[in-house]
Amino acid sequence: MKTAAIIGGGVIGGGWAARFLLNGWDVRVFDPDPEAERKIGEVLANARRSLPGLGNVALPAEGRLSYHATIVEAVAGAVWIQESVPERLELKQKVYGALQAYVAADAIIGSSTSGYKPSQLQDGFNNAAQIVVAHPFNPVYLMPLVELVTTEVNPANVIDSAKAIITEIGMYPLHLKKEIDAHVADRFLEAVWREALWLVKDGIATTEEIDNAIRYGFGIRWAQMGLFETYRVAGGEAGMKHFMAQFGPALKWPWTKLMDVPEFTDELVDLIAGQSDDQSGHHSIRALERIRDDNLVGMMRALGANDWGAGALQNAHDAGREGEAGLVRSMDGLEDLSQPVLTQSRIVPLDWTDYNGHMTESRYLDAFAQSTDRLMMIIGCDAEYIASGGSYFTAETHIRHIDEVHAGDPIQVRTRVIMGQGKKMHLWHEMYSGERLLATGEHMLLHVDLATRRSAPPAAHIEANLAKLAEAHASLAAPEGLGRAIGAPR
Amino acid sequence: MKTAAIIGGGVIGGGWAARFLLNGWDVRVFDPDPEAERKIGEVLANARRSLPGLGNVALPAEGRLSYHATIVEAVAGAVWIQESVPERLELKQKVYGALQAYVAADAIIGSSTSGYKPSQLQDGFNNAAQIVVAHPFNPVYLMPLVELVTTEVNPANVIDSAKAIITEIGMYPLHLKKEIDAHVADRFLEAVWREALWLVKDGIATTEEIDNAIRYGFGIRWAQMGLFETYRVAGGEAGMKHFMAQFGPALKWPWTKLMDVPEFTDELVDLIAGQSDDQSGHHSIRALERIRDDNLVGMMRALGANDWGAGALQNAHDAGREGEAGLVRSMDGLEDLSQPVLTQSRIVPLDWTDYNGHMTESRYLDAFAQSTDRLMMIIGCDAEYIASGGSYFTAETHIRHIDEVHAGDPIQVRTRVIMGQGKKMHLWHEMYSGERLLATGEHMLLHVDLATRRSAPPAAHIEANLAKLAEAHASLAAPEGLGRAIGAPR
Repeated sequence: MKTAAIIGGGVIGGGWAARFLLNGWDVRVFDPDPEAERKIGEVLANARRSLPGLGNVALPAEGRLSYHATIVEAVAGAVWIQESVPERLELKQKVYGALQAYVAADAIIGSSTSGYKPSQLQDGFNNAAQIVVAHPFNPVYLMPLVELVTTEVNPANVIDSAKAIITEIGMYPLHLKKEIDAHVADRFLEAVWREALWLVKDGIATTEEIDNAIRYGFGIRWAQMGLFETYRVAGGEAGMKHFMAQFGPALKWPWTKLMDVPEFTDELVDLIAGQSDDQSGHHSIRALERIRDDNLVGMMRALGANDWGAGALQNAHDAGREGEAGLVRSMDGLEDLSQPVLTQSRIVPLDWTDYNGHMTESRYLDAFAQSTDRLMMIIGCDAEYIASGGSYFTAETHIRHIDEVHAGDPIQVRTRVIMGQGKKMHLWHEMYSGERLLATGEHMLLHVDLATRRSAPPAAHIEANLAKLAEAHASLAAPEGLGRAIGAPR
Repeated sequence: MKTAAIIGGGVIGGGWAARFLLNGWDVRVFDPDPEAERKIGEVLANARRSLPGLGNVALPAEGRLSYHATIVEAVAGAVWIQESVPERLELKQKVYGALQAYVAADAIIGSSTSGYKPSQLQDGFNNAAQIVVAHPFNPVYLMPLVELVTTEVNPANVIDSAKAIITEIGMYPLHLKKEIDAHVADRFLEAVWREALWLVKDGIATTEEIDNAIRYGFGIRWAQMGLFETYRVAGGEAGMKHFMAQFGPALKWPWTKLMDVPEFTDELVDLIAGQSDDQSGHHSIRALERIRDDNLVGMMRALGANDWGAGALQNAHDAGREGEAGLVRSMDGLEDLSQPVLTQSRIVPLDWTDYNGHMTESRYLDAFAQSTDRLMMIIGCDAEYIASGGSYFTAETHIRHIDEVHAGDPIQVRTRVIMGQGKKMHLWHEMYSGERLLATGEHMLLHVDLATRRSAPPAAHIEANLAKLAEAHASLAAPEGLGRAIGAPR
């Protein structure tokens, strides 16, 4: 069991703790704040609510979380140490002095700092090679980006390990080899923040109008394509150079007041705080956190369906976890053909629930359809085969809803082939949450020629695999509910 | 039939043309570019592919699109004139001179300008009162934001009309009463662009790294909450003032090079163009446009499911269109009880299709479930009733998939009550695309007490409405396929 040490809790340290814990690591925390456990607990509750269902494959069992009175105890056995103490250099250096003495020689020390360069944190320590900046974004348990900033004192193996661990916990290491104040992303936030402060100060726009200018316009675009790719597309066939030829001269226009920094007077602070209250005060912060996480999960899962952006990152993470989750991709992977096939192991996502407070009916079919897809992959009807012109279409479906299930609950689907012969494939799925049976899905599918859209026999290897499974499953007792019609007696 | 005139095509003018046309307006275009019809056609193709399925209610029938050789012909009968000619003041003023002569006195003239203030466009014209800035964002057929900038010469009725029309076509008028160069949103883009150019020039990050720093981090947040609301949440219970007290001092740090503007040398242009090719060159621009639109639709529909941000705007637009689409919310709205109830009229969204190139099986149930929800609303089981503790849970479902349907196709669902008595409600949905029967959905639902999660009798008025509908529908011939089991002979 791998161990991570969290030095400094709060929103950021707590977010890292949640990320590691929910990915199966043991997590050891050091934070002298007497409220540390409560604060980290709150972040963990939000994380447990949103992260496990972000992808389509179940995460590992949670690791153990423990709190320690000293740094030396916290870092015992840790292969990753994440420092997230307040942004004061002398405080960070005090921590790094202690770490120098106690961490394992091959452990990685990441700093969440938004304000310091890695060389400033490495300066004067004999274990500088282990120290990197690993700067995350709030909420750390959902946002994939980690700015990984290194210097020449970090050897290749440390950098590779850092990337591997960041990737393993479902995040994206953006490796910046040239250090600069505030790294990359926060420099953009800083630029927008300054401009926004001027707009509020000069009465051009309120905080609410500024936020709407962002989230109803370019803000949505930037969730899936960044600045340069957006402009490339906007530039059309004429290309990027043409786009820049048009846009370049605009840089000389006196558009921006960014040359100056507005004075942070009490008056300005009150103005902003008041407008923020008007804009957002009808929701508590806790409610806004949950709304934010619901939105982030929903949008990232939408990107996942398109295998794009942050969604593509999550799909890759899912794919890497399939084996451990007991999911296979071919007949060879099946250990015991006579048993129903595990075709899904996941956590109910936040965006699968409805106004009744439980997983909504259409998502039962979404899950069963994903299980059908896996069964198809296993028998050889995979993406390559489909691209070559054959597939299965569902002709008829019968679902028995037996029990409720909620966001965050684990679900597993086990699948039997009732019949697989010629053009037909008759499947039976059972959905469980642990021992609880939630639903059954019965489906008749027909193999089709995608060019003609008419039923057609499947390729020989697929028909053979299907027959093999059907024969092996025939030895199982007939499932309860098979062949039901609505209104039939139970 | 309302008419909009589009003066100047291209990506932006074409986007406005598409927006108006798909919302049922006639659109008259003037653009001297011989390629105007082709370019607008390309934008229209992208718009037809993505906008109609963005919401859950069908848009009106498309208006008529026509091209005209003169401005005077183009603006005949137009109540909205959108100017999107190149950003040269003398060219715009030439257009406004012509418009002054020919537009109706109560028409609104909107400019797509990103660079000029409304007073600059109004200057010298006797119909200045009609001229406003209506600045959109690309793609105009999807992004809701319109920065509506006005001056004191625009009377209240003009401003109100402008807001009403912008809202009617599904967009969001952000009314800025104090004009400033570049309005609000582009000032932020300008600030980020400058910073990004420095980072590329100084070799800190490539265009791809910058874009990933955006779209894997704060870019996803900004699709749902803007700068100030995000910071408010991050500030936690301590509040906005505390957050600013911590963040304020950072403004003085020498973080940004924004004081200077980088020189746009050929060298810099080549550097950026080359990195952009490396990053995005494996997709054509047309492919990137479609990927972008797929992502935007998916994410906005995810926000719609949470009734938040751009999704909430779309839901409001849907609600305003229900009557015209033939959808009712109560028994009183039903004209002929003996006929099946129209419970859905919409366009298949882009995110409802799968690898087989058609609407995916689980979305048939998504649609049927939405129709069940509407039937429930009609009989009185609405949001208020559900909040008071009663609802219907689906116990059993049978779906017959009869024909394929694709993104952009219209679908209507008509619903019959087979039986509605005591705790039980037995529904029958038929999904059509025009005359083509696509699928049937048969569902047995049970009324439940949401506190105990056990079946319980519905309120008297609901049971009465259900009985009324069941009795009226009993006179119809039994539907083909009712009571089927998988494997039963056809």
